Amino acid sequence: MEEFARSDLATECGGDREGDGIRVRKSECGGCRLLHVQVRSEAAAARIGKPQGSYVTLECGEIRMLSDSEFDRVRCALSVEIREMAERMCGKRIGGQFSVLVCGLGNGDITADAIGPETVRRLAVTRHLRRMDHALFSTVGLCEISALTPGVLGQTGLETVELVKGAVKAAAPDLVIAVDALAARSVERLSTTVQLSDTGIHPGSGIGNRRKALNAETVGVPVMALGVPTVVDSSTLVFDALHRAGYEPQDFSAELRKTLEEGRSFFVSPKEIDLLVSSVAVLLSGALEKAFAVREGEFS
Amino acid sequence: MEEFARSDLATECGGDREGDGIRVRKSECGGCRLLHVQVRSEAAAARIGKPQGSYVTLECGEIRMLSDSEFDRVRCALSVEIREMAERMCGKRIGGQFSVLVCGLGNGDITADAIGPETVRRLAVTRHLRRMDHALFSTVGLCEISALTPGVLGQTGLETVELVKGAVKAAAPDLVIAVDALAARSVERLSTTVQLSDTGIHPGSGIGNRRKALNAETVGVPVMALGVPTVVDSSTLVFDALHRAGYEPQDFSAELRKTLEEGRSFFVSPKEIDLLVSSVAVLLSGALEKAFAVREGEFS
Amino acid sequence: MEEFARSDLATECGGDREGDGIRVRKSECGGCRLLHVQVRSEAAAARIGKPQGSYVTLECGEIRMLSDSEFDRVRCALSVEIREMAERMCGKRIGGQFSVLVCGLGNGDITADAIGPETVRRLAVTRHLRRMDHALFSTVGLCEISALTPGVLGQTGLETVELVKGAVKAAAPDLVIAVDALAARSVERLSTTVQLSDTGIHPGSGIGNRRKALNAETVGVPVMALGVPTVVDSSTLVFDALHRAGYEPQDFSAELRKTLEEGRSFFVSPKEIDLLVSSVAVLLSGALEKAFAVREGEFS
Amino acid sequence: MEEFARSDLATECGGDREGDGIRVRKSECGGCRLLHVQVRSEAAAARIGKPQGSYVTLECGEIRMLSDSEFDRVRCALSVEIREMAERMCGKRIGGQFSVLVCGLGNGDITADAIGPETVRRLAVTRHLRRMDHALFSTVGLCEISALTPGVLGQTGLETVELVKGAVKAAAPDLVIAVDALAARSVERLSTTVQLSDTGIHPGSGIGNRRKALNAETVGVPVMALGVPTVVDSSTLVFDALHRAGYEPQDFSAELRKTLEEGRSFFVSPKEIDLLVSSVAVLLSGALEKAFAVREGEFS
Repeated sequence: MEEFARSDLATECGGDREGDGIRVRKSECGGCRLLHVQVRSEAAAARIGKPQGSYVTLECGEIRMLSDSEFDRVRCALSVEIREMAERMCGKRIGGQFSVLVCGLGNGDITADAIGPETVRRLAVTRHLRRMDHALFSTVGLCEISALTPGVLGQTGLETVELVKGAVKAAAPDLVIAVDALAARSVERLSTTVQLSDTGIHPGSGIGNRRKALNAETVGVPVMALGVPTVVDSSTLVFDALHRAGYEPQDFSAELRKTLEEGRSFFVSPKEIDLLVSSVAVLLSGALEKAFAVREGEFS
Repeated sequence: MEEFARSDLATECGGDREGDGIRVRKSECGGCRLLHVQVRSEAAAARIGKPQGSYVTLECGEIRMLSDSEFDRVRCALSVEIREMAERMCGKRIGGQFSVLVCGLGNGDITADAIGPETVRRLAVTRHLRRMDHALFSTVGLCEISALTPGVLGQTGLETVELVKGAVKAAAPDLVIAVDALAARSVERLSTTVQLSDTGIHPGSGIGNRRKALNAETVGVPVMALGVPTVVDSSTLVFDALHRAGYEPQDFSAELRKTLEEGRSFFVSPKEIDLLVSSVAVLLSGALEKAFAVREGEFS
Repeated sequence: MEEFARSDLATECGGDREGDGIRVRKSECGGCRLLHVQVRSEAAAARIGKPQGSYVTLECGEIRMLSDSEFDRVRCALSVEIREMAERMCGKRIGGQFSVLVCGLGNGDITADAIGPETVRRLAVTRHLRRMDHALFSTVGLCEISALTPGVLGQTGLETVELVKGAVKAAAPDLVIAVDALAARSVERLSTTVQLSDTGIHPGSGIGNRRKALNAETVGVPVMALGVPTVVDSSTLVFDALHRAGYEPQDFSAELRKTLEEGRSFFVSPKEIDLLVSSVAVLLSGALEKAFAVREGEFS
Repeated sequence: MEEFARSDLATECGGDREGDGIRVRKSECGGCRLLHVQVRSEAAAARIGKPQGSYVTLECGEIRMLSDSEFDRVRCALSVEIREMAERMCGKRIGGQFSVLVCGLGNGDITADAIGPETVRRLAVTRHLRRMDHALFSTVGLCEISALTPGVLGQTGLETVELVKGAVKAAAPDLVIAVDALAARSVERLSTTVQLSDTGIHPGSGIGNRRKALNAETVGVPVMALGVPTVVDSSTLVFDALHRAGYEPQDFSAELRKTLEEGRSFFVSPKEIDLLVSSVAVLLSGALEKAFAVREGEFS
C-alpha cells in the first residue's frame, strides 16, 4: 500500500536515518536545521523509492511567518547550499563563465502548483544582457541566468522535458535547475521545508505527476531539483489517518481501496496557500539570484 | 462529530428527503436533474443545519466536460431558475426596472476559491450604461447589472458584508446575488452541481469560512446565494473514510480528534481545478447575463 | 488649447515656480530631490489647474533602475513624507490609535493603470488582526491598515467614490490614501517621480479620467493622493511635438483639432511598462508599510 | 524618415494598391472586407518594406463591439482563411494527419502585447490526447494542436526563435502559427483588422521589436503569422500629426528628430485595451479551433 503514502521528500521516505547505503549529516545554518542525505546504492534507492544521489533538506519553519531578518538568513543559507551543490554537480566554480537555466515547472493557474512559475516570474534573468555587455559580466563575475516556464501537458500538448531540451540547446547552460511544488506526506511539512537534490526530477514527482524524467540523461546537462512541499495527496492523508486509527492496510475493503485510488486525483492544500506560495517564490528567486551573483542586488 | 462532516449543499445535509418541515420536488430540465427543496420550520432547519428557505440543486454532470450544446442547455436551465427565484424573492418581474448587484465572494488568488471573482470578471455590467442611455434600457427591457469583488478579510482587513453594504447603498439594487465557491461533503459533487438559495450566505459557508451572514437582514435587500462546490474539507474526507472503514466517532482517540481539528485548515481539490473553475465561471456568468437580459448577447 | 497639455503633476503645471499664492520649498533627502508646493489661493489654483493644497514631488530617477540601497533610501524618504502629511492632515500622531484605508484606484487589467491595484496587492493589511489581538497593537503602536481595490466603472457599473464611502463607513479610518497611476506631460517623468497631495483625487485625474472627486467632502475623512506617472496622453504628446516644431495652436486646422480630440482616447506608455509598474508597486507598498508601522517588517 | 512611419500591416505600407509585383484581390465574407495581397518580386517587397509572400487582411470593425452573431460570422470567415492558407503553405489537406503548433508571441504582462499569450491561454490543445486515443483522432479527423508561450527576451534571457525551434523538434508539426500583437500606423486600425501572412515573423515586427526572424528558414517548417494591431508607435503618431500639419521631414530640427527617435521606446494604445485584447483573443482562439477541427466545439 506504499503507493498511498507518497512523498517527494527523501527525508519522509526514510532518508533521514543512516543505514545501508544511506549517509546522513545534520547541521544548522541561518537558524535552519539542515539535513544532507546521500543515497549511495541501488538497494538503498529502492528502499526509499528515490534515485541515488544527494538530497539536502532545509527546515526553516513556516516560510511566510519568518520575520524580515529570519527570512534573510534562510535565503543566505539556501543560496550557499545551491551554490555548493551547483559547483559540485558541474565540477566548476560559479563565476563569470557559469551559465544556469532555471525551469519553473508546474501549472501557474493552480495556486498550489505555481511555485515554479512564480519563482521564475520574480527571477532577474541576465543571459541576454551578457550578450550586450560581455565585459561587465567578466569583470563582476556575474553568471548567465536564463529561465523557462514550460507549462504543463494540458496547456501545451507538449512534454515538459522536450521544451527544456529546446531551451538547453538555446542557452547551452552548465546546469539546469528545475523548481517545482512538491507533495509531502505530512501537512506539517507544507511550506516549512526546502529540498535540493542533484538527481533531477523523476516520474511521479510534482502535483500533476510529471510523466518523464528531467535529468542529465534526458536533457544532456546536470539537473538540480529545488522544491518546497505545498500539497499532500488526498489518498496519503486518508491512508495516514486510517493508519493512526490502528486500521491496517490488509484490512482494507475493496471499496476503501477504490476510494483511495480515486483520491489520487485530488490534493490537499492549506487555506492560506496564496500567501504561502508567494513567500516561497520570493525566497527561492532571492536565493537563486544570490547564489549566482557575485555582487548582490546588482540586477534584482 | 457532525462538525467534521461539513457541506454547503442542502442536499448533502438531508435536504434531499421529504420530512417534517422539508418539501422536496424533483424535475428535469435541459438534461439536468433539478431538486427544489423547501425548509419550512425551525426544527427542520436545525436538523439539516441550514437556514429556512428555498434551495435549488441542479445536477448537470462535470461542467467542464459538457459539449457545447449540453453546456448551452444547462446555461438556459440555470438562467430560468435564477430568474424565477429572483422574481419570487423581489415580488417583481425582471425587466427594465430591475436592478441586480452580483458579488463575487472568495479569494481570487486561490484557484479553488476563485469562482466568485472569476464569474464577476466575465460578467458584462450595464448599470453605468443605463445612466448614459436610459431610453435604450427601457425599450429593450434590460436590467441594471452591477458587480463587486469584495476580496477576503486577509486581503482588505474589512468584513465582506460591510463592503457589500456600501455597494448596496451605491447601486440600490432590488437583489444581491452572492456567487461563491462551496464545500461539498463528497468529491463526486465537485463541479457537477449548482446550488441556488434564497437564504443568502450564512457563517461557515465558503472555503475560508465567511464569518458574517450576508442576507436581507444584514445588507437590507434580498440576497440570493449561487454557488458550485469546488472543495471538500480535508477533515470531512478523513472522517468519511474512517466512517466507511467502520470506525465510529465514539472510538476516536484524542490524537485523532486533534488531527481532524487541524485538518480544518486544509482543503481538498481536484488536480484539474484550473479548468474546472474556468468553465464554472463561464457557466455562471452566462446564466446570469441570460437571466437578466431580455435580448441575449446584446452586451456580452 | 490647454486641454491638450494635461498633467496630473502640479510641478508640470507651473507648480514648480514661486508666485502669487504659490509657495515652493526645495530640499534633498535619501538621494531624491524634493519639492514642497503649497497652492494657497483660488487664483493660483485656477492658474495651475489644480485644487488648493499641498503637493510634494519626490524625484528619484527611474525607479526600476535603482540599486537595492538606493531603493531603500527612496522608500525611507517617501515614508517620511507620507507620515508627515498624514499627521498634518489628521492633526494626530501616527501610532496605535491611527487607522488608514488604502484605496488602489485604476484598472488592474491594464498594465499602465495598475499602480493602485498592484500596490494594494503587495500591502500587508492589519485591521482584522487588531480585532483579534488588541493588546499587541497598542503595545507596539502599529496602525490599523485596511485596503480596497474598487475597480473601475466599466468593471463594476459603480462609481469608485461610492465604494470608497462604503469602505470608509466599515473601517472608520482617520485617513484615506488613494493610490493611482498618473498622467504626465513629459515622458521623462514616467516612473521617475512620486507625487503626494492632501487634496485627494479630482475629476480628470488618472488614466481613465476618474469622474468624481474623492476628497474629504465626498468621503467624509481626509484623502491623501499618492501616485506615480506611468502614461502621457497621446494628444499631449502630439501637441507638444507640434509646439516644439514651432507650430502654434492658433494655426491648427479643424482636422488637426479633431485628431487631437480623438487622441484623448489613447495613452502613451513605455515598452517596459510591466517592470516599471511592478517596481513602483513595491516602492509604494513598502513606503506605506514603513510609514504606518512602528517596527518595520513585523507584518510584511 | 520612413523609419518613423512604421506599420506591421502590409495594407498600410502600400500593399493595398496593385502595382509592379503586387497583386491585390478584394472580396467580402461574413460581413468583413477581405484583401488578398501578393507581393511577388524583390523590388515590390523592398518598396513596401515587407517580405515577398501572401498577406490577407480581414477588416471587421471594432472586434469588441461586434454582436454575438456578427462575431460568429467573423470567426467563421477567419477560420476559412486560416485553413486555406495553411493547406496552401503545407501542400496538404487539414485532417487527422495534420499537426499545428501555435506560438503566442509577446509579453503577457503588458496588456497591449498580450494577444499571443492570451490566445494560447484560451486555446484547447489536443496533441497529448491523440497520443492517448489515436483512433478517435483518425475517425473524426481532428488535427493535432500544440501550443507554446515562449515569453520575451527580458523574461527568459532566451531568443524566442530558439524556444520555438525546441518546440518544433518536440511536436514535429506541419505548420507553426505565430500569433502576435501588431503595430499599426493609424489608430483607426487598432482591433479592427486581422492580418494573416505566409511570411512568418520578420525582425522589427511586434511591440517589443522581435529581433530574429521566425520563418521556415529559421525553424524548419512553414510559419504563418496571425495578428491584430493593438498599438501605434508613438513616433509614428507624432510624425503623422506633423505631416498632417504640413510640416515636412526635411524641415525637422535636430531636437525634433531626437524626440522622434526617443519616442520609439513608447507605444500608444486605447484606454479600453483590456477589453479589446480579451475579445481579440476569444476571436483568434475560436477561429484557430474551428480551422483545425472537423467537428466544432468537440474539445473547446
